[in-house]
Order: sequence, then C-alpha cells, then structure tokens
Amino acid sequence: MSINTFSAKLKKLGVNTESITDTMPLRGAAGLALPQKVVRPLTVKHIQAIQKIAHAEGVSLWVTPNASGNGLQVSQADGEPVLVDLSRMRSVIKVDNDSAYALVEPGVSYRQLSAALQAKRYDFWIDSGRNAADSVVGGICDRSLGYSAYSDNLLMQCGMEVVTADGALVRTGMGALPKGDCWQLFKFGFGPYMDGSFTQSGLGIPTKIGLWISPAPPAYRPFALRIDDEQTMVAAVEVMRDLRINMVVPNTVVVVDGDSERKLLGGNPAPWNIYGGLYGLPKNVDILWGMLNGIAAQLKMRLEDLTQATDSAAQARAGLMQGKPAAVWHDYEKSVGSRYLRLVFALPIEGDKALHFAKRTQEIAKAAGCGVTVEQGTAWRTLMGEVLLSYAEGDVQRALACGKTLISEWAKQGIGVVRADPTFHQAVAATYSDPGFNKLQALLAEAVGASPARRAA
Amino acid sequence: MSINTFSAKLKKLGVNTESITDTMPLRGAAGLALPQKVVRPLTVKHIQAIQKIAHAEGVSLWVTPNASGNGLQVSQADGEPVLVDLSRMRSVIKVDNDSAYALVEPGVSYRQLSAALQAKRYDFWIDSGRNAADSVVGGICDRSLGYSAYSDNLLMQCGMEVVTADGALVRTGMGALPKGDCWQLFKFGFGPYMDGSFTQSGLGIPTKIGLWISPAPPAYRPFALRIDDEQTMVAAVEVMRDLRINMVVPNTVVVVDGDSERKLLGGNPAPWNIYGGLYGLPKNVDILWGMLNGIAAQLKMRLEDLTQATDSAAQARAGLMQGKPAAVWHDYEKSVGSRYLRLVFALPIEGDKALHFAKRTQEIAKAAGCGVTVEQGTAWRTLMGEVLLSYAEGDVQRALACGKTLISEWAKQGIGVVRADPTFHQAVAATYSDPGFNKLQALLAEAVGASPARRAA
Repeated sequence: MSINTFSAKLKKLGVNTESITDTMPLRGAAGLALPQKVVRPLTVKHIQAIQKIAHAEGVSLWVTPNASGNGLQVSQADGEPVLVDLSRMRSVIKVDNDSAYALVEPGVSYRQLSAALQAKRYDFWIDSGRNAADSVVGGICDRSLGYSAYSDNLLMQCGMEVVTADGALVRTGMGALPKGDCWQLFKFGFGPYMDGSFTQSGLGIPTKIGLWISPAPPAYRPFALRIDDEQTMVAAVEVMRDLRINMVVPNTVVVVDGDSERKLLGGNPAPWNIYGGLYGLPKNVDILWGMLNGIAAQLKMRLEDLTQATDSAAQARAGLMQGKPAAVWHDYEKSVGSRYLRLVFALPIEGDKALHFAKRTQEIAKAAGCGVTVEQGTAWRTLMGEVLLSYAEGDVQRALACGKTLISEWAKQGIGVVRADPTFHQAVAATYSDPGFNKLQALLAEAVGASPARRAA
Repeated sequence: MSINTFSAKLKKLGVNTESITDTMPLRGAAGLALPQKVVRPLTVKHIQAIQKIAHAEGVSLWVTPNASGNGLQVSQADGEPVLVDLSRMRSVIKVDNDSAYALVEPGVSYRQLSAALQAKRYDFWIDSGRNAADSVVGGICDRSLGYSAYSDNLLMQCGMEVVTADGALVRTGMGALPKGDCWQLFKFGFGPYMDGSFTQSGLGIPTKIGLWISPAPPAYRPFALRIDDEQTMVAAVEVMRDLRINMVVPNTVVVVDGDSERKLLGGNPAPWNIYGGLYGLPKNVDILWGMLNGIAAQLKMRLEDLTQATDSAAQARAGLMQGKPAAVWHDYEKSVGSRYLRLVFALPIEGDKALHFAKRTQEIAKAAGCGVTVEQGTAWRTLMGEVLLSYAEGDVQRALACGKTLISEWAKQGIGVVRADPTFHQAVAATYSDPGFNKLQALLAEAVGASPARRAA
C-alpha cells in the first residue's frame, strides 16, 4: 500500500494525489506502463518532501515540467509510478534587460515568458520550438534545438536548481556561492561542471533554470530557398554548412521536403525547402542578401524573402526563426492528437547524407504503415534530423516497432539518436555501447540515488 | 615502499619513473607538497596501467598536459605524489576543413595545432591564451578564456576521451557510439552530458579532446579604445556590454589599466585600454567601424585601428584576438620566472564594478607586497577578472596569503573565483558553500573513484 501512505503523507503537507485525466503529458511514454496518479506541487519544499517520501515508500516518480509534456522524465524503477506535474510552479522569477537573461520555474511556457518580456517592453527573442505551450525548462532538460541563433538550448542555459532523489536542494554554478549576481551570468562556476548531468537523465527534479536570451537584432530578413530536384538540394546543403559555420546565417538552417512540410505547417512548399535568417544592422543584412542572391542564382534555386510571405508555412517559418512558436502547428496535433512519437538523429552537415537520411527514413516509416515527417536543421556543427512518427488509434505498437527499426538501422550506419521520447530511451541507450561510458553513467545514477537499484532498496 | 613497486611495475611496461628537473609545470602548485618523481606515458594503455597501479599502490597522481603546466591536476589524496606528464602524447589526430574541428592529444600546444593547420593550408583561427606553449587540452580542462570569438574553451569543446581512476577508458558524447562521424560534431550525445565533470576536477586523465575551430573571417579589424579617466572607463564598459551581447563585437572585449598592460605585454598603453575586434565581410566591417567611431567620439575616447599598430602591446593584442599567442608575454615570464599565481574572478559586465574590482585588487596586492596585474575580459554574459600575483624568490607565502585574502574578500562581496591555480583550489571551493552542491560534488568524486577516501582505501 505504498502509494496510499505516499498520498496520505503528502496530503498533510497540502499536496493532493489525484487521478490523471489529461494524457497529453504522457504522449512520449506511449507503450510503457503509465502512472494513474498525479501530484502537483507548488513549492520547492513540496518537491523535497515528494522525493523523500517517494524514496521511503518505494514510489517511482515521473516528472513533467508542465501540461505540454516536453521534458517528461520517466522512471525505470520498479515501484508504483506517480506523475509529478510541475505546471503550478510557473513563476518568471527574473528577467534582466541589461545582461539579457531570464530565470524561470519549470511550468513556464515559451508563450508565458514572451508575454512577461512584452509586459516590461523588453525587446528579446526567446528561442523556442513549434509549440508555444511547451515548457522552457523542459526544452533545456530535453536538449531541444530551436530555430533562432540561440537554438542550442543547453548551451544557452545558465544556472540551475534541482532537487535530487534524497531530497537535497542543489544550486549549481555561481548559485553555490552564498551571495552575488552571477548565477545567470556565468555557466560553469568552480570545480566540475555538472549541470549537463541533469539533462536527459531523470537524476533530479528541476525547480529553477536560468537561460540567456537574445536581444532582437536591428534588422532580420528570413529567407527560403525553393528547390525542385535532389541534386540541387545536395549542393545547397553543402553551401549552407559553410554559411552556418561562418555565421553568415547564424541560426538553425532547416532543410525539409515538401511532403513533411505540408504535414508540419501546411502551405504550399516546393519539393525541397531550405529556411534561414539574416540578422544584423540593416545595411549589413542588405550586403548578405546580395551574397545569398548570387548563391541562389548559381545553384538555380528560387530565393524568397519571407518578410513578404503569404503562405501559412512560410509565415510560420519566418516566425520560428525569431523565436515565435507556430500557431499552424496545432493543425498537426489536431490531426494526430497525442498519437505521435519523436526521435532526433545527429548527422554531419553533408548534402548526400541529408538526402539519404530523409528519403530512407520516410521509406522505412511508410513501409511500416506510420505517418512520418523528417525535418533537418543545423546546430553548430551537426545536422539534426527530427523524425515524427504518427499512428492510428490503437496502433502504437506499429510506431514503436518502426522507431526501434530506425534507431538500430541508423546506428549501424553510424548515425545516433540524440533526443528521443521516453518510450525509446532504452532502445537508444543500447546503441551507445562504449563500456566505459555506460559504467560512468551507471556510477553517476547510483551516486545521485536515482538508479533502479537504489530506488528499490 | 609503494612508489618503488609503482615504478617497478611501470618499468616492465616501458614507462620510466624519473626525477623532476623542470619545475615550470608545477608553478601553480607553489606552496603545496610537490611530487619529486615524474612518469611520461606514450599511449592510452600506459595511462590505464598508471591509474590501476597507482590505485593499487596508494600513489597519488598529479597530471600535467604538457611542460607548460596549464591544466595541472593536483591530487589531494594522502598517498605519495607522482606527476604524470602527458607531453609525449602530442599527436594532432585530425583536423577537418569542411566541418571546422580538431581532435588532439593532451600534449599538443597552441603553436603545434596552428602549425598543423598551416601545413595543410587550412585557414582557421585557434583560440588561445598568451602562451603558445600551453596545452590546448589543458586550456579546455582549466576552462580558460581566450580572446577570439571562440573564447569560451569548454563551450567549443566537442567529444572527449578520459581514463578514470579505475583505469576505465571512457569516450563521451557521440564517441560512445561504436561507429560514426559525429564525435567532434555534436557535443552532448544521448543521456546525461558529463564532459563538464572532467574539467577543473581531476576526475580522470584526458587522453583525447575534440574542439571546434573558427574559420578565418573574410575581414578582421582589431581596435583599441584609449581612455584617460575613470569616469569614461565606467561608461565605456557599459557600452561594451551591449556591443558584446549583441555580437557587434563578438570576441572577448578586454579592459586593462596601463600599469597591468605594461607588465603583461609592454608598450605604451593609456591609463585605461579597451580592446576588441570587428569580424565579417569587408563592407560589413566598414559599417561597424563607422558605428564604433561614433561611440568613441561621443564618449571622448581615442579609437585606434590595431591593424596599423606599431606599439608592442598593441600588436600583441591584435594577434591575440585572432588566436595568435603573444611573443612579448615571455618578457613577463622572464621577469618573474615561475613565481606567479593566477586567480580568475567572475563579475557582471558593469562599469562601476569593473573599476572597483581592478583598483581594489591592486591595492590589496600592493599592500601585501606582491606584484599584480588585473586584466578583465567579457565572456558571453560575464566579465572575467584575471589576477596574476607575482612574488620574489623565497616569498611564496606572501603571495599565498594575498591570494586567500582576495578570494575571501571578494566572495563576501558576491564575486567568486571561477578558475584558480591548484594551490588555491581548497580556499576557493570553501567559498562555494551551497550544501547540496558540495554533497553532489563529493558523491561524484566518490562514484568515479577519485575521492581521497577511495584513493586511501
């Protein structure tokens, strides 16, 4: 009766255990044995109590930053699972106009952080994904990639507060100093830098995270390159690698086929589409535009200025690259509900590999009877291939099998998954087979008290 | 007789234990009980054997990446200390022209990596400190800040191979995947990101580290702003914060007083000096130069184009910002030998704080009878204040006492040390007193087998 004791003890602290009615936060855990109960703490002290009591009662904690479910942590321990929903902890604790940072609680969504900045008339861009309801903290803990120049969400993270499995409250980086203004200014603090250990890991429950935010540039010109044939797409990716690494196009350069783009954002895309943005002083942007125009002419691509876009997908792309989530994304979620799963693969930014990855992934998924989209985007040196697999009602096993096929097939070709919905975590982890690395991760989990062994004990 | 057994076992593997003759690598450990013996492994297998045998025989390992001593790891365990000098492991394993990265062994110096790139006629800048002989890996493990736009050395690190205390070989990130080209392309891999735990920590001996390198920009115009009075310096730092955060000046903006600059690089500096660089297409640099000229006129600062510099310090600054170490730095080392110690503090990028830090630090050091330089430079959101304390022959206690005073005085005002020579590690760590953070670091050290307790056992 461990879960009853857990509930009774928490009730005394004013935290109710309720039945789960909204299953959206558990979307990425489809196929696993799901928790039936949820607790919604309001304070850090609540979370410390939840960790301690769960530990004592053998309850396994799942964690979702907010109702959107991005950044969902799934426990692999044996105990009865309970979901910790942090959506009531949704304070934008601080935004700093001079040093361009924010400190937020886990429930805060991209929409809410943007609104908080607008209310103060601060002119910043918040790097985000497609969904405005997603948690900012969830994005960092998931190591999401957005579309602006601050796209690498963990790289731009600065300062963290987490509660570990034993209920200890940890402030990392400069937050471990009793006094001072640098918690959101300097990432690494002194001694081993451990913030990264709390991403994609479930080793702690995040309660506050700092992030750097990007001042709006004086000028911004988003563009699309429209491409009809594969050969040109391959050549274009090669050029985009150079432009990205040289910071001429400093944001996430997206490469997406027409089929995937129509499913994701609608509109009327070309067979292949490349999106990027130019940023800077107005005159500088003009110069870069001239350069881009020359490249487009040489490779016979159609260059479009997306500030003039009328097409829904093109408008959405222009917004995404300045950190505005895409309203049209809801059409995708309307069509598939919570019946989709995400895998993100890491590839070199090379044209032939990008083409092969997009085509072969869609072939495999279609043969397996799944809906599929592939969107590829540049990080600092990598092309990240995001695959969404959708499935019909009651058909989750089909999507799970297809996802596992993709994971193992691509691993054999040296292409690894770097972000995955929780239902795929074990399959992905099995492909990272370096024995030293596996041992190190196990030692870390055991030390922080979050390993199955410790939990069960 | 543990060290004799250690030596005998290693001799069988072809690794000799010798007496230390060059004390430069131990510069930063002045005042500690120093090792008398050194081993110089040639292979990863040697390092695995050294870890295992040291563990078995109760020998404490100190580690220096090369003869320069940057990135020195000091063991706090009780056993007899032996220095592991990695300078024979000095292979530039790979440089990639398309994706702009390098993979190097720990002994490789900035000079050597630059030469390897030049030999292939690859046009990259290597972010470095003042000293060309310093180890690239040492800079990353120390979390050094260079002067180019890639100044945050840990942020630009990608992929690592380390040998932990139990002799296990660990490949992090995409290196844990048995196959693939992404080890130096994507930092984080899958699951908890742990590379940061091997920096400023002594939790493992690095054997290979990858790093992103910066393509040489089409145009580069380094500048100096010369300032005569404190009020203008304060105003200038405020403006530089905005230019840095907006990436108009994307590299480390240095602020240094004339006294410190003369000691560091010589020449004929002004009472206050600010250095930065403009990068990009030639026409873009012209536009930014016009903007900078306007700012200089408004604040009554003298703007100098350092491509025209004749002064030794000014020439050195122009080189540093494109990743060229400063030859004139050797004058400093000639004057003080290895009798200097380093502390780096983290401050907000604010004019009044920068002025107070520079002045008060020099007052304290001069009152203590130490030579002192203060050089401040912008990271992404922080002003890093590097303090060098020099001392006369036989007078190390004076510098140690002064350093400890600075550490505790500034901590009381909320300004923490983020990089320190090993002799100051314990004093600095004591200022980061968050109990959860301290417990977490202790658990990590114990788990990885590098804690004093485990070592002694």
